[in-house]
Amino acid sequence: MRVYDIILRKRNGMELSAGEINHLISGYMSGSVPDYQIAAFIMAVFFQGMSAKETSDLTMAIVESGDRVDLSAITGRKVDKHSTGGVGDKTTLVLGPLVAAAGVPVAKMSGRGLGHTGGTIDKLESIRGFSTSLEREVFIQNVNRIGISIGGQTGNLAPADKKLYALRDVTATVDSIPLIASSVMSKKIAAGADAIILDVKTGDGAFMKTLPSAVDLAKAMVEIGTHVGRQTAALITDMEQPLGQTVGNALEVREAVECLRGKGPDDLRELCLVLGSQMVHQAGQAGSVDEARGLLEEILDNGRGLDKFRQLVVNQGGDAAFIDDLSVLPRAGERVELAAPEDGYISGIRAEQIGIAAMMLGAGRETKDSQIDLSVGIELKKKRGARVARGETLALLHVSNAEKANLSKNMVLKAFTISKEPPVARKLVWGQVTAEGVELY
Amino acid sequence: MRVYDIILRKRNGMELSAGEINHLISGYMSGSVPDYQIAAFIMAVFFQGMSAKETSDLTMAIVESGDRVDLSAITGRKVDKHSTGGVGDKTTLVLGPLVAAAGVPVAKMSGRGLGHTGGTIDKLESIRGFSTSLEREVFIQNVNRIGISIGGQTGNLAPADKKLYALRDVTATVDSIPLIASSVMSKKIAAGADAIILDVKTGDGAFMKTLPSAVDLAKAMVEIGTHVGRQTAALITDMEQPLGQTVGNALEVREAVECLRGKGPDDLRELCLVLGSQMVHQAGQAGSVDEARGLLEEILDNGRGLDKFRQLVVNQGGDAAFIDDLSVLPRAGERVELAAPEDGYISGIRAEQIGIAAMMLGAGRETKDSQIDLSVGIELKKKRGARVARGETLALLHVSNAEKANLSKNMVLKAFTISKEPPVARKLVWGQVTAEGVELY
Repeated sequence: MRVYDIILRKRNGMELSAGEINHLISGYMSGSVPDYQIAAFIMAVFFQGMSAKETSDLTMAIVESGDRVDLSAITGRKVDKHSTGGVGDKTTLVLGPLVAAAGVPVAKMSGRGLGHTGGTIDKLESIRGFSTSLEREVFIQNVNRIGISIGGQTGNLAPADKKLYALRDVTATVDSIPLIASSVMSKKIAAGADAIILDVKTGDGAFMKTLPSAVDLAKAMVEIGTHVGRQTAALITDMEQPLGQTVGNALEVREAVECLRGKGPDDLRELCLVLGSQMVHQAGQAGSVDEARGLLEEILDNGRGLDKFRQLVVNQGGDAAFIDDLSVLPRAGERVELAAPEDGYISGIRAEQIGIAAMMLGAGRETKDSQIDLSVGIELKKKRGARVARGETLALLHVSNAEKANLSKNMVLKAFTISKEPPVARKLVWGQVTAEGVELY
Repeated sequence: MRVYDIILRKRNGMELSAGEINHLISGYMSGSVPDYQIAAFIMAVFFQGMSAKETSDLTMAIVESGDRVDLSAITGRKVDKHSTGGVGDKTTLVLGPLVAAAGVPVAKMSGRGLGHTGGTIDKLESIRGFSTSLEREVFIQNVNRIGISIGGQTGNLAPADKKLYALRDVTATVDSIPLIASSVMSKKIAAGADAIILDVKTGDGAFMKTLPSAVDLAKAMVEIGTHVGRQTAALITDMEQPLGQTVGNALEVREAVECLRGKGPDDLRELCLVLGSQMVHQAGQAGSVDEARGLLEEILDNGRGLDKFRQLVVNQGGDAAFIDDLSVLPRAGERVELAAPEDGYISGIRAEQIGIAAMMLGAGRETKDSQIDLSVGIELKKKRGARVARGETLALLHVSNAEKANLSKNMVLKAFTISKEPPVARKLVWGQVTAEGVELY
């Protein structure tokens, strides 16, 4: 089997066998296949695409490049959730305790933020004493004892993905659906869940800017999960503006607590209910998605979700005082108000710009090695559709140094568009993709 | 200027600027642009193609990577000929002396053979004492004194082409018209001629198997030449079967001498007249192509071409005895006859198979470092369209060891197809491409 022929076959639009794909990926990891051959291959994939079978085979070849987490010691059906990344997306902080309270075992491995999107692990570190570095055994014991554990990734999961991603990043081959889908799914499959709920974001702040591209990515990922025997469903959700009202680590923890108190922004609550009811249903804890939703609404409103969050925090060594008194969370030294320059309606808040502005304040990482400030961030006082009067506060920047915040302030101001007429409403959930097909709402 | 953006723009089908192309090629040569980025780039070029302007800019960027030969010290208009490579193609051996005798200055740099195609330098080394390693000054003095010199490539011409070709060869990106065209033309332009006649082969033994692909390549090369101010024309000629009757170094020298004696195979003579009359006309030594052809026919028939060949050989230190007595050329120890297995007409002789069989006998190089045997080769006793009776000799293998020749013998036999009916005649010259357009005959 010659690598040359594999590249040629893909270039000519032929379907590769699992053996050919394995040969490429294992050779790439062992060093026998040089990066320039993989670079040519992935550019050919960009143009020729991959069949569902090829994409699954690629995913499994990436999974096989590293360890696999064995969650079999956890009783019950493990359902994992994955979001393709957004701005202000604190759903995991809410969803974890919420579905755990409904009886779904939550064994969640999360990541750190990079660029304009945040990461759950960073957010959790806003909680004093909370440990996200857990030995695999402790992680599993936690889930069996209290129903939930959230930790950083341990072990060497999907190392081929890291290597491929780094190469795609310098060869203009990031935005290829089979390559994105196999990258995401390889990590999820290696992480060991029985079922996977995907939250595929679409809109300005998402990787997939348009609905059709988000649907294509969702289909590719659901096909992979289905092919390899993991029940997989995807929801297409809106990321045209940031989710909720806060962007920044401690600020997002605060908002998550509010949501678990039955309050908080409507869009955050709704998204958690939609994703959560899918998870509860897939885990077999409710007879239907509607029944699951009813159960979760109760849990949010009666405080059982918040109790579970408190239990999670204490169990992982955190100080739970913030749950009753949000002011103990890290708090930035200064606040800068952003006033509306004119009367009108908020017709858009460009999510990516807000994410970058928050990163520049110190809430996110420009590179993997950047230090972040957990206290800083952006609080949106007005969201899309709201009416504003000139001079009214659009947003509050939580900053460590008001003088250094000018650039971010301008960026946030530019992210807002104000129009004379109210904008057409956008859906929060655009549709769902399951093994049965695509359903757009 | 980021290499990433250049790759992305090409991937997205946009036209690159000369600056962008120079940045890529000069960075590749200096080592600042890694091979994996160039690999992704050339695969993107495979899919998106290049405009005439981009292809010219790429060609000139490759030319600028090395030395340029200055032929200005040679009086007269220098016309170079280049063939895209065939089997049994000894035209340069005939054409050089032929057009030199007609007054065209011939300053020819040739190469060695690789794979199933031969090289003029190897063929000339069949002549005892003939030196192809010439200092640049001697090379130029030769042309000014006797009108012709043929040497191996000297200097560092188009080193970027070597590096790019090596990368294309392992990334399945060889067969891209803009990449092939820029590769050929960069070397021709660096070699310094005023005008270039291209012999673009088509058919089984050619790189371009089909007529449309050969026309496309010819157009791309003529466009480059025209863009950069070198008068360029291409003839599309047949390489469905080997040219002439011999494949192998000394055997081809023998055939060239026969042609210069006014004899030899019809197809070889005709191709030399067609290419030569273009060269003579472009050099301004005849008022029309037809007039040039008449002149060349005379020169072949009155022996002036052969005289010029003798002069060339002597001038470069060779022993010219073979010109009067072909038996002094290197001669293989054994001859193996190949008999027709049935009655019928030769309907095809697959040129590529014949080239590979000759290479396996030792006439060509499998890799750049292979040693070749100048005496061995294949002599075709029947060509396409000929009638044969069962048992009649189809070909004669000139071999060093008859026992080792079995594999080649089978290959040659399989290269012949014999049919009951005479085949439809194929054209020797399919058409021509000039700056004015394409003309198919």
